[in-house]
Amino acid sequence: MQTDLVAALDIGGTKIAGALVEGDGTILARSQRPTPAQESGDTVMRAVGEVLGELTASPRWERVHAVGIGSAGPVDASAGTVSPVNVPGWRDFPLVERVRAATGGLPVELIGDGVAITAAEHWQGAARGHDNALCMVVSTGVGGGLVLGGRLHPGPTGNAGHIGHISVELDGDACPCGARGCVERIASGPNIARRALENGWLPGPDGDVSAASVAAAARAGDPVAMASFERAAQALAAGIAATATLVEIDIAVVGGGVGKAGEVLFAPLRLALRDYATLSFVRSLTVTPAQMGTDAGLVGAAAAALAAQGAGAVTTTAAV
Amino acid sequence: MQTDLVAALDIGGTKIAGALVEGDGTILARSQRPTPAQESGDTVMRAVGEVLGELTASPRWERVHAVGIGSAGPVDASAGTVSPVNVPGWRDFPLVERVRAATGGLPVELIGDGVAITAAEHWQGAARGHDNALCMVVSTGVGGGLVLGGRLHPGPTGNAGHIGHISVELDGDACPCGARGCVERIASGPNIARRALENGWLPGPDGDVSAASVAAAARAGDPVAMASFERAAQALAAGIAATATLVEIDIAVVGGGVGKAGEVLFAPLRLALRDYATLSFVRSLTVTPAQMGTDAGLVGAAAAALAAQGAGAVTTTAAV
Repeated sequence: MQTDLVAALDIGGTKIAGALVEGDGTILARSQRPTPAQESGDTVMRAVGEVLGELTASPRWERVHAVGIGSAGPVDASAGTVSPVNVPGWRDFPLVERVRAATGGLPVELIGDGVAITAAEHWQGAARGHDNALCMVVSTGVGGGLVLGGRLHPGPTGNAGHIGHISVELDGDACPCGARGCVERIASGPNIARRALENGWLPGPDGDVSAASVAAAARAGDPVAMASFERAAQALAAGIAATATLVEIDIAVVGGGVGKAGEVLFAPLRLALRDYATLSFVRSLTVTPAQMGTDAGLVGAAAAALAAQGAGAVTTTAAV
Repeated sequence: MQTDLVAALDIGGTKIAGALVEGDGTILARSQRPTPAQESGDTVMRAVGEVLGELTASPRWERVHAVGIGSAGPVDASAGTVSPVNVPGWRDFPLVERVRAATGGLPVELIGDGVAITAAEHWQGAARGHDNALCMVVSTGVGGGLVLGGRLHPGPTGNAGHIGHISVELDGDACPCGARGCVERIASGPNIARRALENGWLPGPDGDVSAASVAAAARAGDPVAMASFERAAQALAAGIAATATLVEIDIAVVGGGVGKAGEVLFAPLRLALRDYATLSFVRSLTVTPAQMGTDAGLVGAAAAALAAQGAGAVTTTAAV
């Protein structure tokens, strides 16, 4: 059977990836360019054009009937524009219109990158079969997305699930977003490393002061390193519990570089979740590591395009 | 035209109210009993039965085709049970089954009271015409509900929107729910009064130490009373901003006794919201007082029953 075929774009501050994706999630063709993040908006768009050019040159292109884009945020799906924090040349950049023009007028679906990861985890990863889920990426930043009632919930502008910037510490440290005590300000990789260093943790002879290095120290029993992960876990737990209390989710999937720290993160996270997820309807909430790899953004963008076309991906039915 | 007619029940710790409600929201018949909250579960159910008995005796009852229940929580809509904190005789009490039996097998829709208020505000009140809204009740406790994508979002168990028990102060004071620093622990009426008293506020000669009395003092310029409302506003702002950041809402409706404090609450709330709702897609979020009166619970329960029957209330279309 000839299945649906869509094009997917995963646009981040480091790379622009593209692929042709079958209706079952199989990736058939790929293209990639580094993101010229500090260049002009037109230069960044040229890189996107090159990625699309390689995809449209594929003999399979004629079967492509829609394009899905997962982009670093903020995005504005209602306006079709993107303003990625790390790509200053793009502010309210009309990405949807440009991609539509470059693909002969195909329908284009735009979502934030956290929402894209969520679509992927729900379709093929750790959130499969869950009608109500939060999926998170904990790395340099903290992002996320929601599945509610069996469907992706991008929200009107495609940014829903932005758990990194909810405040869990009213009077906490100032966050670059302008607020205080955001989950990201406490739980991101750089903040885990900063807090460990501030409290006296000393890196090894290689001088590696990344969160991965703190995680290694925590695994080896370093109490300061462990405490920094525990504080991150506490903030993540409060954020996850808040999400569950607000919209009722039964699973939180945690991925990204910090998510890969394993039990150093997940053990205190499970403990802290008991402290903050207290109401009867959130008590059975579980946390679990992400399953999708580096293709999550592409697969999720494809899922969103397929769902928008009514192909049924990202619904529970398709996921089972 | 003969419109839809449903029965509605609003069950709280103080009273059990019932009504017959037309498809346009008109209340045609009413019944009410005090809640025998400290009695056995069967005694409480007997009071519900009396309310229903008065409604079924109405000549209009033959037109009733569904029942909506808004109940003090927690509820479990998936199991059809309720466990209201202030009604100890009801724990996992099979209210849906009992009401169905008492009404000759009519379909019964159960939601939490915060969700019911939200359905009412969306249908006929301050959230009318808003596809994405948070409605809150700030009084002895803090409750709420969500409208997402033009529809009520009760969540699988009917408890979604429980904003009073999200933590906005990771290391804050212990909350009776078991967590710390919950919005309710900072912003509820009793906590506004407690904080004012702790910080040296003195009640007037009538000895009234309610939040309403603190509000009157704040309006008269008492700095301690004002500070207590400002702290409540800060917690509410963090919670509202978190909700917007997680699910994208464009309006937050605040009702309940504390909501009636007026600008003493709303002025600092609007200011604090600027501090916490910082991302581009939440910056245009507004807060506004609730419009529905004491019938909100009944009207909302009716709206939920009508929506479940596909009558279209609680959708934006019907609301416009």
